[in-house]
Amino acid sequence: MAVNAGSSTLKWQLFDMPSETKIAGGMIDRLGHENARFIAEYGDGQKFEKQEAITTNELAAAKILTRLKELGIVQHLEEIQGVGHRVVAGGELFKGSTRVTPQVIDQINQLTEYAPLHNPIQAYYINVFTELLPHATQVAVFDTAFFSTLEPEDYLYSVDLDYYKQFRARKYGAHGTSHRYVAARAAELMGKPLEDLKLITLHLGSGASISAIDGGKAIDTSMGFTPLAGITMGTRSGDIDPSLIPFLMKKLGLTDINDFIDILNSKSGLLGISGLSADMRDLEDTEATNERSALALKIFVNRVVKYVGAYVARLGGVDGIVFTAGSGENGIDLRQRIGDQLSAFGVQIDPERNHVRGKERLISPDDASVQAFVIPTNEELMISRDTYHLHQEDLEKQR
Amino acid sequence: MAVNAGSSTLKWQLFDMPSETKIAGGMIDRLGHENARFIAEYGDGQKFEKQEAITTNELAAAKILTRLKELGIVQHLEEIQGVGHRVVAGGELFKGSTRVTPQVIDQINQLTEYAPLHNPIQAYYINVFTELLPHATQVAVFDTAFFSTLEPEDYLYSVDLDYYKQFRARKYGAHGTSHRYVAARAAELMGKPLEDLKLITLHLGSGASISAIDGGKAIDTSMGFTPLAGITMGTRSGDIDPSLIPFLMKKLGLTDINDFIDILNSKSGLLGISGLSADMRDLEDTEATNERSALALKIFVNRVVKYVGAYVARLGGVDGIVFTAGSGENGIDLRQRIGDQLSAFGVQIDPERNHVRGKERLISPDDASVQAFVIPTNEELMISRDTYHLHQEDLEKQR
Repeated sequence: MAVNAGSSTLKWQLFDMPSETKIAGGMIDRLGHENARFIAEYGDGQKFEKQEAITTNELAAAKILTRLKELGIVQHLEEIQGVGHRVVAGGELFKGSTRVTPQVIDQINQLTEYAPLHNPIQAYYINVFTELLPHATQVAVFDTAFFSTLEPEDYLYSVDLDYYKQFRARKYGAHGTSHRYVAARAAELMGKPLEDLKLITLHLGSGASISAIDGGKAIDTSMGFTPLAGITMGTRSGDIDPSLIPFLMKKLGLTDINDFIDILNSKSGLLGISGLSADMRDLEDTEATNERSALALKIFVNRVVKYVGAYVARLGGVDGIVFTAGSGENGIDLRQRIGDQLSAFGVQIDPERNHVRGKERLISPDDASVQAFVIPTNEELMISRDTYHLHQEDLEKQR
Repeated sequence: MAVNAGSSTLKWQLFDMPSETKIAGGMIDRLGHENARFIAEYGDGQKFEKQEAITTNELAAAKILTRLKELGIVQHLEEIQGVGHRVVAGGELFKGSTRVTPQVIDQINQLTEYAPLHNPIQAYYINVFTELLPHATQVAVFDTAFFSTLEPEDYLYSVDLDYYKQFRARKYGAHGTSHRYVAARAAELMGKPLEDLKLITLHLGSGASISAIDGGKAIDTSMGFTPLAGITMGTRSGDIDPSLIPFLMKKLGLTDINDFIDILNSKSGLLGISGLSADMRDLEDTEATNERSALALKIFVNRVVKYVGAYVARLGGVDGIVFTAGSGENGIDLRQRIGDQLSAFGVQIDPERNHVRGKERLISPDDASVQAFVIPTNEELMISRDTYHLHQEDLEKQR
C-alpha cells in the first residue's frame, strides 16, 4: 500500500506485488471536515464514493482500512504486508527509502522546518498506520532521496559556506520518486541499461521540476532548498532575482518576508502572469484571445528550454528526454513547442507520435539522435516497489 | 572622453576619434577624502600620480580637466568635443545611448531606485561636465540599454504581471556596454557580419554576467532586475532559491531583509564559499591546499557552464563564445575548465592558444565548430564611439 498524506487529503493505492498490478486506489479530501469525501476505485472499474464526517487522521486511516474489507478488496488486513509512506523532506539524513523505526519518525519530525506543511502530518500518519497494521513493514519514501547523489558543486548555493555547515541550507530538490520512476522506465523503453544513459526528465505538473540524470544517478534538479525554485509553475514563481523581494515588498507595503514568499508560492507562476489560471489547459484554451495566457505559456516554455539546455551542458550530452506529470503527459502542443526549441541538441518531436495523452510512448522519430518519451509517472508504484523490496529483505532475514 | 563615475571613484579615458587611439586615461579614488589619489597615464607611458584633498565632485571633474592641460595632453579644452557618461540604470526609458538634455538628467534621477548607488552620482557628474565643457556633446551610455532588445518571455519574471506593469519589475541586465563591445569585436575577428552570428559572451570579472546574442541583438543575460542575479560572482551569490532568505534570516536573527540582501551582495559568491577571497587568483593559488577554494572554483565553473548551456538552447545553437573582463581575460585555467565542460556543444579550447592573458586571441583550434575568443573588454572605447557618432550627427545637422 502506498500512502500519500497532505494537510487535508489522504491518497492511497494498493498493489499486488511483485506483479505490480494495481488492486485499488482512492482518496479522502476535505479531511477534518464534516463533509469530507471518501472515494475508492477498485476491481474492474467499480467506484465507491461517500460524503461523511472524517474529522481526525486516525479516523481517516481506519476508514480506509475498514472499507477495504467492506468492499471486499481485501479479506483480511494481514494481506497488506507493507505500507510505503511518501515523505516530502528527507534532508541529508535519508538517502533512500527506509524502514520505519521510532528514530526514523523522530528524524522526520526534526526535518519539519524544511517542509512545515508536510513532514509533521506524514510522520503522524506513519504512526497511525503502524498502530493499525502492526504486522506490516512500514517504509518511508522521501521526495528528496533521489537527489542525495548530487555533487556539492550542484547542491550548494554561492553563499557563506557556514550556512550549509550550520543550517544545512542547500538544494534538496523534490519530485524525486517521480524522476526516478520515469528514468528507470525510459531505460527499459530504450532497451539500454540505465547506467549507460544521460537522461533529462521533465516533471511538468502544477508543481514542476526538471532533472539531469547520468547513469541513473541524479546530477542536478531545478527545484532548490524548497519546491519554490526552478522553472515557472502553476502558482509558483520559480527562480527570481532575490533583489526583487525588498523592492516589491516596499512597493506592496509588506513588512514580513513570509507574506511575500507566500505570494511567490501561491499567486505567481502561470496564475500570476496570466491573471487567469494556474492550469495550463485554461491557458491553451484562451491563448488566441488572451495576450496574458499566451505570454504565460511562452514564459513557461522558455524556462523549460533553458533548464534543459543547462542540463545538456552539465551532463555533457543527452540520450533521452522524458515528459511526465499533468502537462507533461497531456500537453500535446506544449511538448511540441518545447521539443521544437531544443532542435539544436538533436531533439525532435514527431507530431503524429506526439498526439497522445497520458500514455507511455516514444514521441521522437526513429532517426532522432535524442529519444523523447511520454511516460506517465507512477510515484505510488515506486513507493510500493521500495516497500516490497524492504519487506522481502525482512522476510529473508527471518528465514 | 569617457567618464565612469562611482560613489568614491571617478575614472576617465580620452580617445582620438575616429582613429580610436587612446590618448590618456586615469582615475581619482578615495574621492571625497583629504587623501584622495589622482592618477593619469598618457603619452608613451608617462604617469602622473598625486595624493591630494579632492573633497567634492565639482573639484574632481575640474581637477581632471585642469591636469589635461597642465600635462599637455590637450592644448585647449575645446578639443574635447564629446563626453560620454556611463550610467548604470536606464530602465525601460533608454534603449540606446542618448544625447544629454535636462529631461534626460531628470529621467536618470528618476531611475535612482533601480541603482541607488550609481544613478544619482552619475547624473550629478553629467551636470558638472556639461557646465565645465559647454561646447561638448554630452552623451549618456547605459549599462542596461543593450538588453532593451530582450523579448518579454526573457525579461519577465513568473510573478504577478502587475508588478511589471505598475513597478517595472523585470530583468534589466548589466555590463551591456561590455557585452556589446566584445560581440562586435568577435564578429570582426570571425570575419562575418554580426547579423549572421549566434554568440555567447562571458563577462567574468568580480561582477560577472553571461549574455546570449543573436545577430547582434541581446536575447538574454544572466543578471536580472539587479546585478545580484545570475552566476556566482566575487562577493555576490547569483541565483538562489528565494525561500532561503526567510529561512536564513531566522537562523541569523535578522529582521530586515535589506541586511540579508547586503550579505548576498557583499559576503557571498566566491568569498562566501571559500571564506578566503573574492579574487579568483587567490583561489587558484590555494586550491591545492584549501578545500573551500577548490569548491568555490568548481561552483563558479558549474554555474557558467549551465548558463552557457541554457543560452545555447535559447539561441538554438552557437557560433562563438567570448571570454572577457578580469578572469575571462586572464584566467587561463578557468577558460580551459569551462571549455572542457562545454565539449558537447562543439566548444574546444586549444591549450597552447589559450595560454594568453589580457590579449585578443582565438583560443579554439581551427577545426572547432564553435570559435572561442579572449577579447579584452573596452567599455570606454564603446562609450567614446557612441559619443563620437552622436557628435557627428550633431555636426551634420548644423551643416
